Amino acid sequence: MPLEEKTLNLDLDRRRRLGMVEAVWGANKTVAQILVAAKRFAAAQQPLLVTRVDTAKAKALQQQLPDLHYHPQAQCLTMGPLPTPWQRLALVTGGSSDLSVAAEATVALACHGVEAELIADVGVAGLHRLMDRLDHLAQFPVLIVCAGMEGSLATVVAGLLPQPVIAVPVSVGYGVSAGGHVALQGMLASCAPGLSVVNIDNGYGAAMAALRILHMETSRSSKKTI
Amino acid sequence: MPLEEKTLNLDLDRRRRLGMVEAVWGANKTVAQILVAAKRFAAAQQPLLVTRVDTAKAKALQQQLPDLHYHPQAQCLTMGPLPTPWQRLALVTGGSSDLSVAAEATVALACHGVEAELIADVGVAGLHRLMDRLDHLAQFPVLIVCAGMEGSLATVVAGLLPQPVIAVPVSVGYGVSAGGHVALQGMLASCAPGLSVVNIDNGYGAAMAALRILHMETSRSSKKTI
Amino acid sequence: MPLEEKTLNLDLDRRRRLGMVEAVWGANKTVAQILVAAKRFAAAQQPLLVTRVDTAKAKALQQQLPDLHYHPQAQCLTMGPLPTPWQRLALVTGGSSDLSVAAEATVALACHGVEAELIADVGVAGLHRLMDRLDHLAQFPVLIVCAGMEGSLATVVAGLLPQPVIAVPVSVGYGVSAGGHVALQGMLASCAPGLSVVNIDNGYGAAMAALRILHMETSRSSKKTI
Amino acid sequence: MPLEEKTLNLDLDRRRRLGMVEAVWGANKTVAQILVAAKRFAAAQQPLLVTRVDTAKAKALQQQLPDLHYHPQAQCLTMGPLPTPWQRLALVTGGSSDLSVAAEATVALACHGVEAELIADVGVAGLHRLMDRLDHLAQFPVLIVCAGMEGSLATVVAGLLPQPVIAVPVSVGYGVSAGGHVALQGMLASCAPGLSVVNIDNGYGAAMAALRILHMETSRSSKKTI
Amino acid sequence: MPLEEKTLNLDLDRRRRLGMVEAVWGANKTVAQILVAAKRFAAAQQPLLVTRVDTAKAKALQQQLPDLHYHPQAQCLTMGPLPTPWQRLALVTGGSSDLSVAAEATVALACHGVEAELIADVGVAGLHRLMDRLDHLAQFPVLIVCAGMEGSLATVVAGLLPQPVIAVPVSVGYGVSAGGHVALQGMLASCAPGLSVVNIDNGYGAAMAALRILHMETSRSSKKTI
Amino acid sequence: MPLEEKTLNLDLDRRRRLGMVEAVWGANKTVAQILVAAKRFAAAQQPLLVTRVDTAKAKALQQQLPDLHYHPQAQCLTMGPLPTPWQRLALVTGGSSDLSVAAEATVALACHGVEAELIADVGVAGLHRLMDRLDHLAQFPVLIVCAGMEGSLATVVAGLLPQPVIAVPVSVGYGVSAGGHVALQGMLASCAPGLSVVNIDNGYGAAMAALRILHMETSRSSKKTI
Amino acid sequence: MPLEEKTLNLDLDRRRRLGMVEAVWGANKTVAQILVAAKRFAAAQQPLLVTRVDTAKAKALQQQLPDLHYHPQAQCLTMGPLPTPWQRLALVTGGSSDLSVAAEATVALACHGVEAELIADVGVAGLHRLMDRLDHLAQFPVLIVCAGMEGSLATVVAGLLPQPVIAVPVSVGYGVSAGGHVALQGMLASCAPGLSVVNIDNGYGAAMAALRILHMETSRSSKKTI
Amino acid sequence: MPLEEKTLNLDLDRRRRLGMVEAVWGANKTVAQILVAAKRFAAAQQPLLVTRVDTAKAKALQQQLPDLHYHPQAQCLTMGPLPTPWQRLALVTGGSSDLSVAAEATVALACHGVEAELIADVGVAGLHRLMDRLDHLAQFPVLIVCAGMEGSLATVVAGLLPQPVIAVPVSVGYGVSAGGHVALQGMLASCAPGLSVVNIDNGYGAAMAALRILHMETSRSSKKTI
Repeated sequence: MPLEEKTLNLDLDRRRRLGMVEAVWGANKTVAQILVAAKRFAAAQQPLLVTRVDTAKAKALQQQLPDLHYHPQAQCLTMGPLPTPWQRLALVTGGSSDLSVAAEATVALACHGVEAELIADVGVAGLHRLMDRLDHLAQFPVLIVCAGMEGSLATVVAGLLPQPVIAVPVSVGYGVSAGGHVALQGMLASCAPGLSVVNIDNGYGAAMAALRILHMETSRSSKKTI
Repeated sequence: MPLEEKTLNLDLDRRRRLGMVEAVWGANKTVAQILVAAKRFAAAQQPLLVTRVDTAKAKALQQQLPDLHYHPQAQCLTMGPLPTPWQRLALVTGGSSDLSVAAEATVALACHGVEAELIADVGVAGLHRLMDRLDHLAQFPVLIVCAGMEGSLATVVAGLLPQPVIAVPVSVGYGVSAGGHVALQGMLASCAPGLSVVNIDNGYGAAMAALRILHMETSRSSKKTI
Repeated sequence: MPLEEKTLNLDLDRRRRLGMVEAVWGANKTVAQILVAAKRFAAAQQPLLVTRVDTAKAKALQQQLPDLHYHPQAQCLTMGPLPTPWQRLALVTGGSSDLSVAAEATVALACHGVEAELIADVGVAGLHRLMDRLDHLAQFPVLIVCAGMEGSLATVVAGLLPQPVIAVPVSVGYGVSAGGHVALQGMLASCAPGLSVVNIDNGYGAAMAALRILHMETSRSSKKTI
Repeated sequence: MPLEEKTLNLDLDRRRRLGMVEAVWGANKTVAQILVAAKRFAAAQQPLLVTRVDTAKAKALQQQLPDLHYHPQAQCLTMGPLPTPWQRLALVTGGSSDLSVAAEATVALACHGVEAELIADVGVAGLHRLMDRLDHLAQFPVLIVCAGMEGSLATVVAGLLPQPVIAVPVSVGYGVSAGGHVALQGMLASCAPGLSVVNIDNGYGAAMAALRILHMETSRSSKKTI
Repeated sequence: MPLEEKTLNLDLDRRRRLGMVEAVWGANKTVAQILVAAKRFAAAQQPLLVTRVDTAKAKALQQQLPDLHYHPQAQCLTMGPLPTPWQRLALVTGGSSDLSVAAEATVALACHGVEAELIADVGVAGLHRLMDRLDHLAQFPVLIVCAGMEGSLATVVAGLLPQPVIAVPVSVGYGVSAGGHVALQGMLASCAPGLSVVNIDNGYGAAMAALRILHMETSRSSKKTI
Repeated sequence: MPLEEKTLNLDLDRRRRLGMVEAVWGANKTVAQILVAAKRFAAAQQPLLVTRVDTAKAKALQQQLPDLHYHPQAQCLTMGPLPTPWQRLALVTGGSSDLSVAAEATVALACHGVEAELIADVGVAGLHRLMDRLDHLAQFPVLIVCAGMEGSLATVVAGLLPQPVIAVPVSVGYGVSAGGHVALQGMLASCAPGLSVVNIDNGYGAAMAALRILHMETSRSSKKTI
Repeated sequence: MPLEEKTLNLDLDRRRRLGMVEAVWGANKTVAQILVAAKRFAAAQQPLLVTRVDTAKAKALQQQLPDLHYHPQAQCLTMGPLPTPWQRLALVTGGSSDLSVAAEATVALACHGVEAELIADVGVAGLHRLMDRLDHLAQFPVLIVCAGMEGSLATVVAGLLPQPVIAVPVSVGYGVSAGGHVALQGMLASCAPGLSVVNIDNGYGAAMAALRILHMETSRSSKKTI
Repeated sequence: MPLEEKTLNLDLDRRRRLGMVEAVWGANKTVAQILVAAKRFAAAQQPLLVTRVDTAKAKALQQQLPDLHYHPQAQCLTMGPLPTPWQRLALVTGGSSDLSVAAEATVALACHGVEAELIADVGVAGLHRLMDRLDHLAQFPVLIVCAGMEGSLATVVAGLLPQPVIAVPVSVGYGVSAGGHVALQGMLASCAPGLSVVNIDNGYGAAMAALRILHMETSRSSKKTI
């Protein structure tokens, strides 16, 4: 058995346990490792989601597994048809530079039947852009807010709207804001009540936090399968 | 008008907008400032919640406003009867040192009609303590996990259970874990999918994040008033 | 000559050079050292400003120099009459906990003939409190914004109003926001254009930055003496 | 509508509100995104400023929009004629390595009709270079000081001259000074009164802070349009 | 004598003193420096171990010294036959991304006659993967645990099993967990008793710490020579 | 059942599982909480170890449970007779200021039948103090090294002696070394091979890491019960 | 033999080896420990220097050893007559708040026959205070510069004068400069050539670095005994 | 006048003032900027030293100014003959990876007539390598110690030898020691008395600190011109 087979130990039970597929974190994996994972998911008849795959790695993988679908802005791979959406949420971003993180969340949600509507580039430097969309935003059950720099968009949104707000700091910035740490800490320190936060650039994690909430909403009647 | 009157600008609209009362953060406020706030809430017929009030300050306030009720473990003040509970969640803690943060969350939830059941001292150094309670934990719509040190309890819980999990790092520890920063970062970096995090020791914030979720669940039928 | 005399080397030329009196930073000075400074300023017929003086030290000093006037909220000492105001600016604060920093700025400005109008407790968690005051704020030549926690108030103000905005991070907070570092970094990383920042809790520094601007405005016609 | 159109939400109102054009931060944007922005500014008959554009990206953009003018040292793009200068200020730098940051400030000011005179390479290791230019510097209404390493040039300038001084830490250095954080903190901690600071390498931000001051000076008589 | 000869001062006595060969840290050394070291080890009839050698450097070295054996996943070079194993231990990893660190430990142990059995990809996000292998793990005298992200695998292992556990934080992660610092601190702050830790990615160091323990075990009867 | 009873969930199984008693971390516990724990250990006929108990708390506890024995330098409480020693190790400290950490390790080891011989004040500023004791140190199966400041004692010891070396950074120092973080990082970064490290001031943790090693040594013949 | 006797291992050879007496760091030592040290130094007929002794501890010690002399500003204890000075140097401080660090250096130098002349309160916010003393400063063989805040005084001095300059960052400041870390890093990052730095508040260390230089100067003719 | 001419403001007076030539820091300068500097030094008949010049930049410069001499290990350029040595010192390094920093110091000293003898690869992991050379090291007036990792070599040297010791932390390491920060802090926190420290990798700075000392030694008789 090749090393890639032996050292990969997928959590195929996660779908039963948590209602989520295991996402393969592609950043530190070789093409051979990802291939083994993709084949195992296929064999188990589970949907595949690989995150953090750059274009070169994606191309190499698609040559060997043509069924793989690459989402370039999200840097994600999926395989097979995505489920029909059963729920929606809103994805709000501060600038057009936050879109790749938002795209990762979008693909991760789509793999679980949730459609994300993108409200982009409504940062607080020009506050009217957000204020004009408040009524629209009020209609979604959950809000994911992606922002870099000082990240105050999440605070402003959570101060104005009552839904669950999941904040994703984005590693967009320079000087003190390089790496997204200021956005992260600003979101954690927020004066707005009940904002919760995930790791920097963790679009996938925000999607799964939202999915836990959306599942909960439907869990008493008939649990949605992904 | 005395200075305290002039410089206090309560957000009495928060209840209508977000379904939450404004919590007064008592840590940096004087007795005079808190008194003004308490009277305004009373005048507006809104419930009062003051957090981070030490015993001495609480005693001084109660002498002037005997209706104030002090919750010593939570270091919180409330006034008037708390609403009848309409919902429950579980509060899980790693050690008996995390209880004051859990207590703050409990009081903040109680002010909004949510009862928190405490599952204390189930840290992963003795993992069986948690494993024995998994079936019980599976029955709650939302889980709040408070942990200090390395904070891995939140990761283990979120890997085993499908509900929304809100992690609260606690400033219990010494050396590298002093101040709760390691617990915070470990929760943000968690390999478990969909864990969301609030500021260190922010029991109140975790409560409000949970409340946003619980409100959402009920919002389509008949929104609960607090 | 006693040690205090020998080791104090006041910059009495600062008033001529910069249009400001030297402020004595009282935090690490003994009563004896501050006394020597106060007498030298008096001898030089210059106004006195001592910052960061706690109540006990102030009392000890007043016993020896009854002319000293103590401003308890600002923790500052002055001596003699303050100049008649020749200019105004606005001091905006996020919460009632930021008032001591704002008070230090107010006293420092008053020593130079500038009156600061306080717009307190208008943090972005309840954004309407700020929006209702925009027209009023538009009338001041300079805005100083004091905020703790995540400090996003400064970003929102600088995105809405065109005047010079000097942001003062305040060491109000806990967990990640303890010490004011998150507010500082959020203000530096701000997406609003042209916000400038001073050290944490540096009400005096913000006052002097504002004074440099106000002096400039009048410098072509007839420079105001303090 | 292509994605770039849909996700770009320019703040074209900023000119009316703040007297500044929105600068497009080019660092994390694709050529397609910048093109959409440039066309919208042209359609709105507003001046264009794109910062943080490397040479390759600039070339690709100029091939599609030949009207774009690239400023290589500043790494900025502008389009159309720049306004005739109505005001001047001085830009002081510590070493010849700080010039790219100074150049970004120069272009940003030129877009708003302010001419920046460069006083370069006058760091305090050879203090006479600054002392010889004090009389010249005294003639400008505002001073911007760019410095890397330990950044003490800003402190020395602000201790000697009475004008508003905006300090820009520069990411020039190695070891402890790598990334400009020491310069930033040294400027914030400065013992000189009334120094205000912007983010590391933020030439654009310093320019806008200066513009707010220069606008204020002229605002009572007849506000200059950019 | 060429510079490489003159400036290399190998600790050939280490084998006698500590029972370990000196490992040459190849990361910052030139091909010429490593060649000199390899020849000296050969002349002294000591086994060679060079760590942190990338593929290009390895190829250049092998062209000059064909006896060198390159272990690509471990990024290590050895020369000559490895000793017959006299002892075993278990190497546990959280994900398939931790394998290069585990491989460095494996090669370093093999140089000293210790065989490492790899138990890979048993991270706590899917806890059953570890639980199913507890009986197997209980049979090894020493456990090395490699984990990135929040590193809680080491805490869980040390809470369940009584052997010496050496934790190796791995620089796998992003955002707060970039560089492995969160895993390091989480392991140091662990609530599990008696976990000891080495530097981030230090597979070699963990191997030597394990070797010290295994040597001790046999030291009273007849010390094993490597 | 009082709150202290309900929220304490001792890991009484730890002795069977790991060969260690659960140590109660007394720092953040009330007298009432520690009392409940002590009684439960007594009821379970297990030895008691409470760490981080200051003198006042110890006195209050002894008044209620006179069987408690307080070790003032170690700040630890034990109850009942300690087991007869079955093994020894050496505890090396850099200065006389590291003694309280060494004392905590000594008591924790004594609770498990291991005697620690103290070799104090042999820091490398006067290297001869250590060199004179090398032959003596060579006789112990395990070495624990406690050092503050820059912590280089651990590196020097591990470079000279072949046994397992467990390094404990101590929070003795000021300026950059305040809090013990430099000692910690210096120990982790050590150029000596196979040094392993525990949290700052974690004498208890070093003791348990040593105990795991000493247990292993004896585990094949007849496991020692504590 | 009492514990204090047994655990103290003075480096009485240091005087022969390095030409310095061992300074006892009093901060973390008990009265009993310092007493033992003092008696041993007396028995060895070596001068005594104890640093970081607060007033209460000094008083307790003097009651038992009346020969001890306490220097309150320096927080140091000495015993017996100090040697006649054989050399001088200059101690320059930025503000009157740096005097306690300068005093520690002064006492440590006096113990070795070096007289320190204090040039106090010449910080760069009022640069003329330093410029007026340049000729005087040029006459000393070595300069020690103590400064807090941003610490730029050391850079300015080292840019103007050719002697060895030893910089001591002082923990005077607040916000970013709290703890002296900004002064430290600014001194390390200094653009002035050949500045060397010691730990924050380490007056003693600066004195010993200066002593090494002064000894060297005289070592070829006749080495001065202390 | 081209921009490079206009923005370069060399401190040609430094040689008279400090006895050192200004070193041009080549890292952030263009070929054109360095050329202008080289020509000015030549015109002023002063020796040239350019540091931090990579091979490609050096080659480009030599094509235009063939008199330039490149020192590849030091990454430095000089022009014209170096002065005859009038003094010597010792340069001690911990590993062969520290040689480039040592080489920068060597070239900088050579430009000022000081010869550096290299004692390489004597790190404390194999302490005998240093101990065998103590008598040799005792003969030099000044010692420069370069070390990466935990940097304890500097502490050991300064504990054993009485001369001035200048410590240079080197950015060799990984994990916690990446970037040289641990070596820096370990040197600052050193328990050895009178160690002074320069910035990470600052071979040039250490050379200039040594030069200040060596100049002092000779300054009373006849000052050496460089």
